[in-house]
Amino acid sequence: MSLNEKPSLYLDDIAVGMLFCSRAAVITEERLKSFAQEFDPQPFHLDEEAAQNSLFAGLAASGWHTAAHSHRLFLESVPMAKGMVGAGVELSWPTPTRAGDWLRVESRVKEIIPSRSKPDRAIVIMESQTLNQADAVVLKMLSRIVMFKRDSDSPAVADPV
Amino acid sequence: MSLNEKPSLYLDDIAVGMLFCSRAAVITEERLKSFAQEFDPQPFHLDEEAAQNSLFAGLAASGWHTAAHSHRLFLESVPMAKGMVGAGVELSWPTPTRAGDWLRVESRVKEIIPSRSKPDRAIVIMESQTLNQADAVVLKMLSRIVMFKRDSDSPAVADPV
Repeated sequence: MSLNEKPSLYLDDIAVGMLFCSRAAVITEERLKSFAQEFDPQPFHLDEEAAQNSLFAGLAASGWHTAAHSHRLFLESVPMAKGMVGAGVELSWPTPTRAGDWLRVESRVKEIIPSRSKPDRAIVIMESQTLNQADAVVLKMLSRIVMFKRDSDSPAVADPV
Repeated sequence: MSLNEKPSLYLDDIAVGMLFCSRAAVITEERLKSFAQEFDPQPFHLDEEAAQNSLFAGLAASGWHTAAHSHRLFLESVPMAKGMVGAGVELSWPTPTRAGDWLRVESRVKEIIPSRSKPDRAIVIMESQTLNQADAVVLKMLSRIVMFKRDSDSPAVADPV
């Protein structure tokens, strides 16, 4: 989040090429396993020994955990006024997330596509990557996000990033 | 999961066009809010009143919650031997998920792309949709999944679905 508490980034404030960087946050072994137990209960997400003999060659987070964790950081680092609503997303996981990894997200504005029917908004294409503490990319995310122009009664943002 | 307890579906067992259907599972209001609190803390995922004035016109689940919940059902309904490992996925959310929605997943084999370098595996493209109790599509998912051929020492599956 920027200088303001309230998300305050409008379409007017962004341009193609802008880069947003999040804080880093850890995925603990305990949360890695409890997330997997609920949403992705496979041996390589739950048990170190079983994971050794898998494609991952060791305990790995569910890709959906890496994605949700990344979304939290992405959301904080791109504090959009009216909230962040995704119209669609493409994901890939080049490297597994391991227990204890500290992840951060870097997001760049790739394209801005004005709405044809609604002049107050656009689809913004954001290209994000989630990096671990060794700078390996654990998630690539290409998001289509709805952004709005500033209302006349909304305060201006001096320094949105 | 099929007749067997153990995931037992190999590349040999599937063909383009096959359909897999999951059980239905509910997203409760309590879990909807706690998931959002951790991964997607935006007013329209946390507070009914704030949600009324949002794009969603009412409390809606985080898209990442709908995706993770769907993945659990997808995983159960396509019980792949050696586990389900995604190489990439495309997502979109045509309709919001609401508190109390019962979701189920239907997945069809769209394409099978043999690996060029590793003859024991292929990338399988699966086209899934998550439906609510009113048959509205809350998630579309196009997944690229690694699948393996049957080992000589693995038991055959008479009826994989």
